[in-house]
Parts: sequence; structure tokens; C-alpha cells
Amino acid sequence: MRNRILLISFIFFVPVFFVASLPTKEKNINSALKLSEESEACLDCHSSVTPGIVEDWQTSLHSKINLQQAISKPELEKRVSSNKIQEKFGDKVIGCYECHSLNADSHKDNFDHFGYRINVIVSPNDCSTCHPIEATQYSESKKANAIGNLEENPVYHTLVETITSTKEFKNGKIVQTKEFENARSESCYACHGTKIEVKGMRSVETDLGEIEIPNLSNWPNHGVGRINPDGSKGACTSCHPRHSFSIEIARKPYTCGQCHLEPDVPAYNVYKESKHGNIFESKKEKWNWTNVPWTVGKDFSAPTCTSCHNSLLVNSSGDIIAERSHDFGSRLWTRLFGLIYAHPQPKNGNTSIIRNKDGLILPTTFTGENASEFLISKEEQSARIVKMSKVCQSCHSTTYASNHFKKLDKTIEETNKMTLTATQLLLEAWNAGLANKNNPFDETIEIKWIKQWLLYSNSIRYASAMSGPDYAAFKNGWWDLSNNLAEMKDWIEVHKKIKK
Amino acid sequence: MRNRILLISFIFFVPVFFVASLPTKEKNINSALKLSEESEACLDCHSSVTPGIVEDWQTSLHSKINLQQAISKPELEKRVSSNKIQEKFGDKVIGCYECHSLNADSHKDNFDHFGYRINVIVSPNDCSTCHPIEATQYSESKKANAIGNLEENPVYHTLVETITSTKEFKNGKIVQTKEFENARSESCYACHGTKIEVKGMRSVETDLGEIEIPNLSNWPNHGVGRINPDGSKGACTSCHPRHSFSIEIARKPYTCGQCHLEPDVPAYNVYKESKHGNIFESKKEKWNWTNVPWTVGKDFSAPTCTSCHNSLLVNSSGDIIAERSHDFGSRLWTRLFGLIYAHPQPKNGNTSIIRNKDGLILPTTFTGENASEFLISKEEQSARIVKMSKVCQSCHSTTYASNHFKKLDKTIEETNKMTLTATQLLLEAWNAGLANKNNPFDETIEIKWIKQWLLYSNSIRYASAMSGPDYAAFKNGWWDLSNNLAEMKDWIEVHKKIKK
Amino acid sequence: MRNRILLISFIFFVPVFFVASLPTKEKNINSALKLSEESEACLDCHSSVTPGIVEDWQTSLHSKINLQQAISKPELEKRVSSNKIQEKFGDKVIGCYECHSLNADSHKDNFDHFGYRINVIVSPNDCSTCHPIEATQYSESKKANAIGNLEENPVYHTLVETITSTKEFKNGKIVQTKEFENARSESCYACHGTKIEVKGMRSVETDLGEIEIPNLSNWPNHGVGRINPDGSKGACTSCHPRHSFSIEIARKPYTCGQCHLEPDVPAYNVYKESKHGNIFESKKEKWNWTNVPWTVGKDFSAPTCTSCHNSLLVNSSGDIIAERSHDFGSRLWTRLFGLIYAHPQPKNGNTSIIRNKDGLILPTTFTGENASEFLISKEEQSARIVKMSKVCQSCHSTTYASNHFKKLDKTIEETNKMTLTATQLLLEAWNAGLANKNNPFDETIEIKWIKQWLLYSNSIRYASAMSGPDYAAFKNGWWDLSNNLAEMKDWIEVHKKIKK
Repeated sequence: MRNRILLISFIFFVPVFFVASLPTKEKNINSALKLSEESEACLDCHSSVTPGIVEDWQTSLHSKINLQQAISKPELEKRVSSNKIQEKFGDKVIGCYECHSLNADSHKDNFDHFGYRINVIVSPNDCSTCHPIEATQYSESKKANAIGNLEENPVYHTLVETITSTKEFKNGKIVQTKEFENARSESCYACHGTKIEVKGMRSVETDLGEIEIPNLSNWPNHGVGRINPDGSKGACTSCHPRHSFSIEIARKPYTCGQCHLEPDVPAYNVYKESKHGNIFESKKEKWNWTNVPWTVGKDFSAPTCTSCHNSLLVNSSGDIIAERSHDFGSRLWTRLFGLIYAHPQPKNGNTSIIRNKDGLILPTTFTGENASEFLISKEEQSARIVKMSKVCQSCHSTTYASNHFKKLDKTIEETNKMTLTATQLLLEAWNAGLANKNNPFDETIEIKWIKQWLLYSNSIRYASAMSGPDYAAFKNGWWDLSNNLAEMKDWIEVHKKIKK
Repeated sequence: MRNRILLISFIFFVPVFFVASLPTKEKNINSALKLSEESEACLDCHSSVTPGIVEDWQTSLHSKINLQQAISKPELEKRVSSNKIQEKFGDKVIGCYECHSLNADSHKDNFDHFGYRINVIVSPNDCSTCHPIEATQYSESKKANAIGNLEENPVYHTLVETITSTKEFKNGKIVQTKEFENARSESCYACHGTKIEVKGMRSVETDLGEIEIPNLSNWPNHGVGRINPDGSKGACTSCHPRHSFSIEIARKPYTCGQCHLEPDVPAYNVYKESKHGNIFESKKEKWNWTNVPWTVGKDFSAPTCTSCHNSLLVNSSGDIIAERSHDFGSRLWTRLFGLIYAHPQPKNGNTSIIRNKDGLILPTTFTGENASEFLISKEEQSARIVKMSKVCQSCHSTTYASNHFKKLDKTIEETNKMTLTATQLLLEAWNAGLANKNNPFDETIEIKWIKQWLLYSNSIRYASAMSGPDYAAFKNGWWDLSNNLAEMKDWIEVHKKIKK
Repeated sequence: MRNRILLISFIFFVPVFFVASLPTKEKNINSALKLSEESEACLDCHSSVTPGIVEDWQTSLHSKINLQQAISKPELEKRVSSNKIQEKFGDKVIGCYECHSLNADSHKDNFDHFGYRINVIVSPNDCSTCHPIEATQYSESKKANAIGNLEENPVYHTLVETITSTKEFKNGKIVQTKEFENARSESCYACHGTKIEVKGMRSVETDLGEIEIPNLSNWPNHGVGRINPDGSKGACTSCHPRHSFSIEIARKPYTCGQCHLEPDVPAYNVYKESKHGNIFESKKEKWNWTNVPWTVGKDFSAPTCTSCHNSLLVNSSGDIIAERSHDFGSRLWTRLFGLIYAHPQPKNGNTSIIRNKDGLILPTTFTGENASEFLISKEEQSARIVKMSKVCQSCHSTTYASNHFKKLDKTIEETNKMTLTATQLLLEAWNAGLANKNNPFDETIEIKWIKQWLLYSNSIRYASAMSGPDYAAFKNGWWDLSNNLAEMKDWIEVHKKIKK
């Protein structure tokens, strides 16, 4: 308590000290810019309590520009999509309090922190104050729906439960009991997101004495579909990390690579072994990672994840090659990721509304028939191919690009066929009573079947889409896709013999 | 058609515009340099149609120097090996047309493109106009022969066919039918190269209207042994990517790492976890990646793939440590890559002329005896060890280097022995009628045997050659090499029992 | 012999030449600095014989500062921990001879080299002349004891022997005979270190004629627990590579990543896919890698291996966040690495003094009971959590950090439980006579059991400790941990049936 009083009294003296300690260059830039009184109070303590994030914020645009300046930029150079000047921010830069105090009423994680009402978590809904188009696009994407898409899908739901549950060996049997508390949130939900709830308050001993803070469950988590205490979905910080909110980091493939990686979604790994990834690695230090819009050839000389999937791209003359989108599937026509088969992209980011012919929440049937009415049409697919091809054609001929995507079509067809063969082998095992289909994910032959689509077919498709040869060959590629069938057949033969 | 006329009329106006848009610095360099009229015509359209490659070309030496200047450099600094000035290039820099119009008569992919005769693909034979020594060395290497070496070798040919063929489940059996159209070109042939043929012409809808272009099969592809429409073999663009033709990219290990990677040829992966790779990653931004010749210690402080395998290296006094070669096997004495056993390097880059004692196109027999008359002699092996050791001795003592290579010899002996044990287990399975040797690559026990040499023995040898410990240990290393024998034996026992 | 005389006569002329060839900037710095006569003699030959390491040394602080200058730095900026000025070094910089001549009497690898007494290997004991605190801390760590900890531990000793021994197929059986000469030193001992012994002298043919040098066994090796010819343990060069002795390289995660990598210790791999690793990759070129002390936020904006585990960290005001330590386990409370179960850190870096309840040199029993009296207490564990959390709290709230470590506790509990289930399955196999427990590491079911703790449980724990989701999921994570139990059970069922 004494500490708290001491701290508050500090608030009026430290700001001067803080500004004085800014590097000269930053001071010049900031000289005309003002920080709100509230944010100055935050910095008073946090520049010594959590110095790392204060330094990060100082490198961010948020500390260097106010909303009026941000809005007055030429259209293509804008980084904010709201055109209304937020009266309450006035001529102040965007400091701690500007973000952590927004929409307090809807924030169950709002609490009194040394006299200020603070939200622990800044949510996409808060960011939408200045970035509304981005927030809306994101909210419609599969990413924002990543938890529901997992939990309500009977394939994935059971798979998650199977692999993250306690397994004990009792009376000669493996008994699966309750889910481990942590296993789920640290594996699948680390990327998909957790549901964060406020479970009352708790006291924490800090260097500044005991303080009361909201007790958050499933926190920390920065999964793309995180359900926040204000009810919004997603975490902008998944890609624009706290507190630099860096466009540079979001544009670099390391960010996507945190979740889109082998063995199940080897997008990042394939990229790294592609010619594009090679050029990225070789030349990246010389590229301009922060320009908006992003000029092909000038700012960068090989595509990254974001240049193909969501960045605003222009050519040297300023003509738009691709529009910015924060719905990361909006340029995609096919969903490589096998569930169980590759299929056209769903119409809606919320895939739990899909029903296949068997009435299941799945985009295809067990033998590969599409739930077409929930998937985008041929026309929409073609339109998206054109959209994506425009990016390719910045460097490649029309034929080069169209041949590339024709190959991808063939690859999808071929890998779907090899997945179907595995499905038929699994049916054989079930029909012969060698395995029990109640839970289709917990027996050896079933695990082999899962590998066929989740690891091998997927890897080959990503390798085809982004021209990384080894994931089509020996690294979960055709080598494994083919061998796995031999192993499934071998397993069936052995088990048929010993059953007799 | 109207578009075409419009385009041609543009040709006379756009060049001024193009030069005006060059960055100031480049303009100075280029002020004395001239672009041919034909290349100016290319740029007129392509700087807006495919801006990325035009920007790339502008960063290349080709846009910044003419042949006369290139030839007049001091001997060790030369980047062209032709000493004859190509009259036709005159004082012009090397633009689009200079390369894409060469040797039109031998190019089946030559076509009329807005009034110009253009080859779609620039081949090693075209590059040899200015770089004849490099082209000749390359043409004699295993790389240039990468398709034939794969297709005519009975082991690999069958392996490729087995893993990339349709497999259906019919009447309780897996039936292998025809090869998938795409699977081969996206896996093995993505690195080895495809045969590109011209299948007539086709019309393509472009932003500039409908145009006629050659219809190329198996394109795009940039494999090292690609067979081009002019009959030449290879793709210089595998390592010097279009259109920067960068020596920097070719020298960085990412390039080699596109194909020489785990699990079958983990050269790049082992490098990354070696001390050399560690220093490369830590210091690479400060190295000079473009100097010719390349000075050990000054330009770089740890070896990369090319410094050991093919770059021209000198010490600070300008003494040659290693000669440049574009036959990438020319400093190698042993072929680590198991086929089925490691063995001395073949005398000829075309390995399809080899016959082993059993009359097969293989460098060793099934039990490991070398086809010695087709492999380099002991003397030649020693001479190459000396050549390679000179690179090592830039930093390491004579003993350090010689002990290192003695260890490699031992490793080859040890891994060959462990491969032989696996071969004996496979023979046991065949002799006992547990598997059918007609196709030695399609049954479970056979797949385990392949892993022994193709994945595990290989990994250990690369780990030994380049001092990356984990590929000798748990990552496809001794752990797997040893366990695999236990698994083969277990498989044999189970199948013997159930056969009774 | 003639060469030797020639060389010695050179010694008096070449130094001038050498200094003259230094780049201008370095000359200024060095103008006041003197190199000892002996080191000048070394450079006379070695700048042309091994130019790479001479260039490396020139980039090092050793060439740019003398001990007096080093000692007079402010306390927190010091890079030497000895406060006594070494009389013998005087005002000279630290050259070749200064290090390679130290403590000659205890060096069995000391030899006459062109008139000078030289040690081949500079050991931690030699480095302790100027860096005594670091050497002492290191000598007490698990790293310095890495050979003994491996060889005297019955689990690891047998495991190493099993996987690196000759295996022949004789009379239908796999017979394990003697250990391969090389397999051990290139796999496990490449990281753990070898024992280097002097086996007399040998003659070597060099460019400078025949010279006599010590014949070292098991050399080269740079493992962390290497036993040196002077009896000391360790190799400072494992992390500070020869001859730049770079703090930059030691601080970058590539160094730790040479040994701490998947599949058994995937610390580096998890880091790379974490948000911390992502920020490191994105921003590393702008960080200051050499400042001492290292300022959080200013010098770097995301933690690396060393910032959490051993660097001296301060905040912008110069307050110490974490003390430097070269005992790399000193901030750790739990030992993730399963042996067989995760357990509290051992009290002593020498783990061969541990005895569990069964009398074995192992920190837990076969079923997971801790050998508590040899492991640190609850209090010490808590103290270390506080120490480590201070680093986290540079950027994260108290709750964020404490919740993170609570999750880790849960993960350890959960993975230990899944390991125990595998142990029970193994016991079932042994009890049913399906496998022979004499060697618990050489049969298929035993190998599966090893994978459960050595690969899968470990991966999940590292993923939890450093927030890299895929090693908790599909990459040796919960997916494999769970599937492996199904496979073990399947194996037992099949073998029970065929035994009948």
C-alpha cells in the first residue's frame, strides 16, 4: 500500500525523465508529438518494471505518429482504415492507455490498476477503432473461427481428444480417460487459440508490492482464433507482436512459420526449400520490409507468404497488383489441407455450418465427395486463380503461372486418389474386425490412415503449390505416401493371420 | 492484334521513360553503357508486364557492364571465360534479347514474339557464348547427366517408378498401375530435371491480347539435368536464378540446400548444425559475397558449400588456394551417397556407362563390391583429397584436416558394413519366401532395407564429412541405423511364424 | 630442416610486413598496442599457412586490447574476471603465443615447434588465466562433466554402446560385437566430448617440409566435456570458436543449436518456432550482439538462449536483471531432459555421484521416483524460478510469467505419466517373455519405449518451456506420445499370439 502511494506520487515527476532519456533522433521526431497523461503514467512505472515492451513500443509507429497524421496519408500509403478522427485521441500518439482502456464495458478483464481502468488484453475489437476494415476481414476468415472450426468438427474434435488424453495401462489394456489439462492448450490450441475467461481476481506479489489483478484462465495464449474476455475472436498479436506491432515481422515468413509448419501443414518448410525461399534468405537484408504499399521488384525481389496471400502490392508505376486483405484465404481457391481430402475453399470462414452428404460437419465425405453447396463455385475458384496469378505474373509469364497451377490441380487429384486407397484399406480392416471404428483415431492401422492424409498428402500438395521438391519426395512425400500403403496392407495381413 | 500494333508503336517512346526511372546511382554507372534496340523493345513492355524480372536484371552485372569491359579485367577477377569479343554484342550491355535470341536455329522453342525471334528458355549452350569453360565443365559433371543417371540406373529407375505410381486396392491387393503424370516431375525430377519438349503452339490470353507461344511440356522446371529444347543439358538458373544471375545467391548454401537436404542427402542440414554453418549464420551479413576471386579470411570466415566444392579461392596475398570449377564433383574422391554402398567417385559424369560384376548399371554389387574400372583410382582419390585439404588448411593444421578425413574413411567402412547386414537380412526374407524380389522396393521389409542405405547410412556419412553431430546420432543416424536392423529381424520373425 | 632455418630467419623480417598489411582502421587502434615477439613469429608463417585463423584473430578483442586495458574497464563492462595484471603479458595484446604457451608443464601436448614450446590445445585451464570465474563456474557445470555423466550412467552407457556397435547377421541372429571405432566419437561424443590423449609424436609433410607434431587420439573434437591433454575438462571453443573467440557467436542461438536440437533435445528447434525465435530472426541484424553488459530492449528485443540461461543482463538504467554465469544450469530448477523421467536439477554437475533407490547412478527409479537427496530442494527450485522469471518480467507481467511456468509444471507431470504408461507396457512385454531385459535397448519394443521418454516426452517439455507449439503437437509431440502407446500395445498383442 505504501508502495502504491509512492508510485502514484512518482507519476508527476518521471515523465520529464523519460522523455529526456529518448535517443536524440527519436526526440526530434517526437518533439511535436504528445503522449496522453494516462500513458505517461503507465510509462513511469513500466519503463523500469517491463523495460522490454516500452522499448518495443518506442520502435513502433504507434509512438511516432498521431491519428490525424496517419489518416492524412495518401490512400495507398495508409496504415489505418478508419477515416474518422477519433476525438478522444486528439493529437496524442497511441500510447499504452489509448489501447488498454478501450471499450472497457465489454471487457471482463477490465480492472483498477493504480487508479486507472485497464484491460489486460487488447482485442481485435479494440484494434478496430483505427483498423476497422482489417478487423472485419479478419473476423470473417477461417483464422478468427479457428477454435469453433476445430471443436465442432467431429474429425478434429475426436482427434484432439484422442491424442491429448490421459492413457493408462490397466488389465492389459490402454484406457483413455480425461483430457490432460495442459496438453490441449500447449499443442493444438496454442495455434488455434484458447477461450480466455476471467475467474475473479487474484493477488500478486510484485516488486511494487501486492496488487490485485484479474485471474485469467488459459492465459497466456496468442492463437489466431483466441476468444477474448470481451467476446471478440482472434489475436492481432499472433502476427503483429506486442508492443512493436511490427509490419516487418508480420511480413516475414517466420511469423506464418510458427504454425504453418511440418509435418501437418509444411507451408513454411516448403517455402524455405523453394527458389523463392532461397532468394528471400539470400537477399532479405536489402529489402524494404515496411513500405506501404509494397512495390514488387523494388521493395522485394521474391514473394513471401504475405505477398502472395494478403499484402497490398503495386508495381513501380503504382498500379495495384493485389489488394490488401486480412482474410488470409481470400486469394485461395483450393484447400490443400486434407480433411480428409483436399477440396475447394469453404464459402464461410465458419466451417461448422458445413454438412456433408452423411450429415457430418465435414467438407467431404469419407470417400471424398465434396459438400459442394458449402464450398466456393467453379467461377469463384477461377476468379481467385486469376487474383493469385497476377502476383506470379509480376515475374513469370502467363504460361509459367498457368502451367504451375495446372500441376497443382493434378497433384490434388493424385493425392486424393492415394488417400482413397488408404481409406479402402482402413475399411477392409474395420470390416474384418481387426480394428474398432468407434474411435477412428486410436489404433495402429487408423494412425497409419491419418498419416496418409494429414501428413503425406498434405506435404505433397504444399510442395506442389510452392515448388519445394523434398516434401513431394522423401520428406513425408510420395516415398511415404506409397510406403504407407504397403505398411497398412502388411498390418492387415499379419492381423488377419493371428486372428484365426 | 490491335494490341500488338499498339505495343510495337510503344517501343519507340518508352525507353526514354525507362532510363529516366532508373535510380540516380545506377544511371551514372549506366550512362556510358548502351542497351541494344531489341532489348529496349523487350523492356518497353516487360517493365510493366513482368516488373519483377526487369528489376532483377537491373541488379545484375549483365545490365551494368559490357563484354569488352568484362574481358579486360585481370585474369583472376574475370567472370567471363571467353576471351573473344562477341562482335554482335559490340559495346552493348547484356540485355534480354542478347540471351533470348542466341542460337535460334537449334532452339525448338524459338518463336515470333511481336516481331522478334525469341527462345523461351536460355540454355547452358547459350550461356557458353560468354562462359564457355563453365559450360563445358558443367556438361561433364554428374549434374548435367542427372536425368540419364536416374533413368538408366536400374535401382533408381524402379524406385522412382514404384513410389510415383498409382496404387489401388483391388480384391485385397495393392495394385500398382501407371505412373502419375505429375508425381515424378514434382518430386525426383524437380531436382534432377525434366525433358522439355515443344508440342506445337498455343494461344494465351494476356493483358496485351491473345498471343501465340510454344507449348512446352514439363515446364516450368529448373532441375540441374534438365534437357532443353535445344538439346543441351542443365539449367544455369538452378543456382544463378533468373534474372539477377546472382553469384551471391549461388554462393550461399540456401541454393545447394534446395536439393541437397534431408532425409536422403542431408548435406545442407548437416552444414547448418556444424560449426562452419554456425559461423556462416552468425557472420554472413558482414561477408563479401560477390568478390572474384574470393579471399579466405577477408571475404568470408567459414566455408560454405561453394568454397569447398567449386569457388576460386585465394589467400590475402592472392595465391590460389583452389581453382574454380563448375564440375561440382571435381574435388571429391568418394561418393557418400549410397547406391547401395558408398564408393569412389565415378570417372565419368555419365554414370549410365558403368557395369558392375553382375552386369548392372550400378557402381557396386548388391553385396558391396566396387565396379572399380569405372571409378577413379587410388591415385586420383589421393590427389583430390590434397585438393580439398588445401581449403581446410586455410584455417586448420595439416593433422586436423588429415585426421578429419581419416575419420570419414572409417565412417564409410562402418556404414557400409551396417548396410551389408541389412542386405543379408533382406536376402533371408527373400529366401524364406516372405517377400518377393521381383520389385525390390515395394514391400515393408524392402522399404526398411532402403532406409538403411538411402537415409541412415547416408546421413551418418554427411554428418562425418561435415561435422554435424546429430545426423550421426538421433536424426537418421546411428540410432536409426541400429534400430532398423532390430526391426527388420522382428519383421522376419513375425512373418516366419504366421507363414507356418 | 633447411626449411626450418629459412623460416626462423624470416621471423625477423616479416612482422613489419604483417603490420603494414593491416587495414588502416585496425592499424590506428593497434598503433599503441604491441604484439609479443613470439606471437609475431607465429604470424610470420601462419598468416600465409593458415590465413583464415589469423584473420579471425584480427577480428577478435584479443588482438585489439591488452590485459591492462581490459582490467581497467568499469565493473559491469569487464570481459576478464581476473583483477591481477599478468606480469608476463605486460602491455602486449593477447596473441597466439600468449595462449598456446600457457602451463606448458601440465600439457602432454606441448611440443617444440620451430624453436618454441607450443601446446596444440588451449584448454579451459589456460583460459582461466584471464577468465578465472568463468572457468570455475564452467568446471562445476554438467557440461564440464559431460563425458563422465554419460559413461558412468548405466542407462546412457548401455544405450551408447548398443547403438554404436558392430551388428552382424549370423545364423539367423543379429550379433552385436565390438563398438565401431568412429561411430561413438562422431555421434554422442561429438557433443559430449572425447578424451584426447597424446600417443607419441608423428611426422607430417607440410608445405614447409616435414615437421614433428604430437600424435593426438580422438582429435579433432570440440565437445563441451572434452578431456584435454592437460587434464582439464571442457572446450571454451565449443561456443567461442577459434580464433575470433566471439561473444557474438556465443550469444547467437546457432551455437547452442549445434547440440541442443531435435529429436532428443529440441531446444533450438522449439525456439525457432516460438514468438521469441520469430522476433530474433526478424530483427537480429539490428541488435547489438557485443555490448557488455547486455541491455534488455536496447541491445535486443527478444530473448535468445544466452539471455535466459547465462548472460549478464541489465535494464536501461543499468540495474542488473540477471548475473552472468558460465554454469549453464544455474538458473534452471527442473531438468526437462528425461532420464527416464523429468526431475529437479541435480545438486552437482557431476551426476555420476547420484544413487537412486535401486542403487543405480540415475536421478529417478525405473518407475519415476526421484533420488531426492541428490537433487535440489523445493526452496532452491523456487529461488531459481524467481531468478529466471526476472528475465521474463523484462517484457511480461508477473502473472504471464508465473502462469507460463505453472503450465510447464503440469506438462512435466503429464508427460511423466505418459512415460510411466510406456514403462508399464515394457514391463508387460518383459514379464511375458516377449523381450529380454538383459539389454533394455536393443529390441523393437524397447526402442519404442525409449522413444516415449527420449524423444516424445522431451519434445513436449521443451515446447512447453519455450512456447513452440508443434513440438507439443505433431512433431514428436502428443501425437507421437499417444500413438506410441497404441503401437507398443499392438506389438505386444501380435507377439503374444505368435508365441503360442
